[in-house]
Amino acid sequence: MAKSYRWKKQLKKTLGQVRCASFLTARLTSQQKKKILQDVSRQLICSEKKIIRENQRDLRTAKQEGLSSAMLDRLTLTPKRIREMAEGVRAVASLPDPIGRVVKRWKRPNGLVISRVTVPIGVILIIFESRPNVTAECASLCLKSGNAVILRGGREAFYSNRVLVSIFDEVLRRYRLTGSCIGFVQTTDRQAVDFLLHQDKEIQLVIPRGGEQLIRKVAETSRIPVVKHYQGICHVYVDQKADSKKAVNIAFNAKMQRPGVCNAMETLLVHRKIASRFLPELGRKLREGGCEVRGDAAVKKILPWAQKATPEDYGCEFLDKVLAVRVVSDIDEAMAHIQKYGSGHTDAIVTQDSKAAKIFRDRVDSSSVMVNASTRFSDGFQYGFGAEIGISTDKIHARGPMGLEGLTSYKYVVEGNGQVRT
Amino acid sequence: MAKSYRWKKQLKKTLGQVRCASFLTARLTSQQKKKILQDVSRQLICSEKKIIRENQRDLRTAKQEGLSSAMLDRLTLTPKRIREMAEGVRAVASLPDPIGRVVKRWKRPNGLVISRVTVPIGVILIIFESRPNVTAECASLCLKSGNAVILRGGREAFYSNRVLVSIFDEVLRRYRLTGSCIGFVQTTDRQAVDFLLHQDKEIQLVIPRGGEQLIRKVAETSRIPVVKHYQGICHVYVDQKADSKKAVNIAFNAKMQRPGVCNAMETLLVHRKIASRFLPELGRKLREGGCEVRGDAAVKKILPWAQKATPEDYGCEFLDKVLAVRVVSDIDEAMAHIQKYGSGHTDAIVTQDSKAAKIFRDRVDSSSVMVNASTRFSDGFQYGFGAEIGISTDKIHARGPMGLEGLTSYKYVVEGNGQVRT
Repeated sequence: MAKSYRWKKQLKKTLGQVRCASFLTARLTSQQKKKILQDVSRQLICSEKKIIRENQRDLRTAKQEGLSSAMLDRLTLTPKRIREMAEGVRAVASLPDPIGRVVKRWKRPNGLVISRVTVPIGVILIIFESRPNVTAECASLCLKSGNAVILRGGREAFYSNRVLVSIFDEVLRRYRLTGSCIGFVQTTDRQAVDFLLHQDKEIQLVIPRGGEQLIRKVAETSRIPVVKHYQGICHVYVDQKADSKKAVNIAFNAKMQRPGVCNAMETLLVHRKIASRFLPELGRKLREGGCEVRGDAAVKKILPWAQKATPEDYGCEFLDKVLAVRVVSDIDEAMAHIQKYGSGHTDAIVTQDSKAAKIFRDRVDSSSVMVNASTRFSDGFQYGFGAEIGISTDKIHARGPMGLEGLTSYKYVVEGNGQVRT
Repeated sequence: MAKSYRWKKQLKKTLGQVRCASFLTARLTSQQKKKILQDVSRQLICSEKKIIRENQRDLRTAKQEGLSSAMLDRLTLTPKRIREMAEGVRAVASLPDPIGRVVKRWKRPNGLVISRVTVPIGVILIIFESRPNVTAECASLCLKSGNAVILRGGREAFYSNRVLVSIFDEVLRRYRLTGSCIGFVQTTDRQAVDFLLHQDKEIQLVIPRGGEQLIRKVAETSRIPVVKHYQGICHVYVDQKADSKKAVNIAFNAKMQRPGVCNAMETLLVHRKIASRFLPELGRKLREGGCEVRGDAAVKKILPWAQKATPEDYGCEFLDKVLAVRVVSDIDEAMAHIQKYGSGHTDAIVTQDSKAAKIFRDRVDSSSVMVNASTRFSDGFQYGFGAEIGISTDKIHARGPMGLEGLTSYKYVVEGNGQVRT
């Protein structure tokens, strides 16, 4: 009880400071933001030894606690990874300033000139799991968009995250900014997250980054708007009029280029009229690549070596070299399947028929709809946003890959000459 | 218990139907939406007698229950009000279709063409208090933006709301659309609202329309994103370099043109250097108009008849002919006051000094910032949106007056020619 009281008091103080700092970050000029982030980038390189020392502290505990080698790898910072992190911060520094842009401007008959101008959101809470490079990524994106941020990383990466935040702090102080522009949750108490998720006066947006379980917990607890996606159950539908070679390339790329990410394909839908022409070639490549195929009866007729798909395989996010395949009798059946099993993340059609492409494009209600391209392109960098803070499958505020623009709000500025309402 | 079970079962069924209907409304063409709403408008006029009969049922109960005359007035539907309602629906019919617009379109170096296209949000829940014309307003805005809607009106207006929804139904059926495009909550059980606010799979957005208490309750309970504003504590700051005549007109209009609405001024801030020139004239007009003035010591020196302001008067939403006034020593003090007491709705500066205007415009973080114009202009119709579903003081999704555009989301359409990711 006494312990909980201590962190609550500490957190309340942090929250107040970050809220005040957000008024300062909102007023930074484009030039200032650019210079601050360039300095942070340099400082990260200079602080390599310190960062690795703190990272070692995390790694020692992690090893004692028996974390998996995959987890240990994600946690580890090497000189190369620190350089990459610094380059990432530098890249954000040179992106165009998303704040203060006049998005629209129009004149009313009474002479009022109305502008819609982008502004920062305020304070953004980011809750993430073990990869400490998320700290540098999120802190620079939030600063660039004029927001203050509160970071709550995984317990395993506590010392690594803390030292990274301290490097931002150091630079911010040089610019006479309080370190509170980037708040860091000092306690690893799990209740602290619940507490933060109820502070809807101090925090304007929550972005959870991590596994589905983390995101569900955040969404269920939060009183603050959450931008998120739970799962990426992405489909590729190969239409009867697909170019078979393109279809093989796209499907193979969508599944195999990086199977563990949210924009990888999980289910392939094939029009029955093209199945016997298309599936053998793709099947051969998948098999060579070590990918397990789980198909319905029609698939098994063509690929006898495939596993039989269970109903649970459709709508499953394998995040692995496993693919569910189903033969459909037309585009409507494909779209009905996507509506039933999809997660609204990214779905693709491969077809040379512009009518089929239009139907699919218009009716499939996913955050990204691909025509003759791999689902793997659904990504902020690939869309040319220069950076990505996350991907949203929600319909509110931001949808799809979210770059700096997703971290802004807007206000209306109305300029008159004494107009009053009659 | 048995009763609660009954409405829960009923509501679940309604929710499922509305969700399915939302896939149909999303696919309506611009022409169809226009014709449907024009037909509804005509049908409202033809159904005048039926509407008034049902409205009488509500009014009888309301009188028995002793509702205030203001409440009774808001509840009453007259032939004139029905005509106005029908005109409102017709006006929405002729607005440009907000759906399917390509907001941006760009080409990537690899040849992919990416478009950001507006789409409906899905199912919108609208919770409102007694005015039954909200039913027609919200139903037509949601339909026009391709959304399905669930309406939950006040208990007092149950029969009036039900008959209005049935008129939409009648027309929708003529277009072979299920009446479920506009769901109506049949139970008046208060727990039904709590139940609905937890259905984040079926409902994508909640818009509460009504008093602060209603909105707070909705925001606290909801697991679904809520677009809202609690209060409109709007300020007018009269700068030392204001045109005194304009300032008098703007301040008088902001307070008196319609004191009971959210964009009316509640506190006036006056630069000390202009106070003795400006306040007597405004004071005279306010006093003549029957407006109570509550001022600090500096104000009372100039307007001896004014009441003394208590600390609670600043930041109070009077919604009446009452005005808090404070003399400030500079623009910074004015902006600090607004930051402390404002609700982020609408704040105005009156000045001929373009530097002061710029500082105020850039730093005041309200959804609408007015320069030399009355706060009363902060309104969807005044901004030229053609209609208004509400005003948001949140920073997420929509901010300020919200028209049809606030009822849309978007998706990315990526068109390629076989591109895969390397």
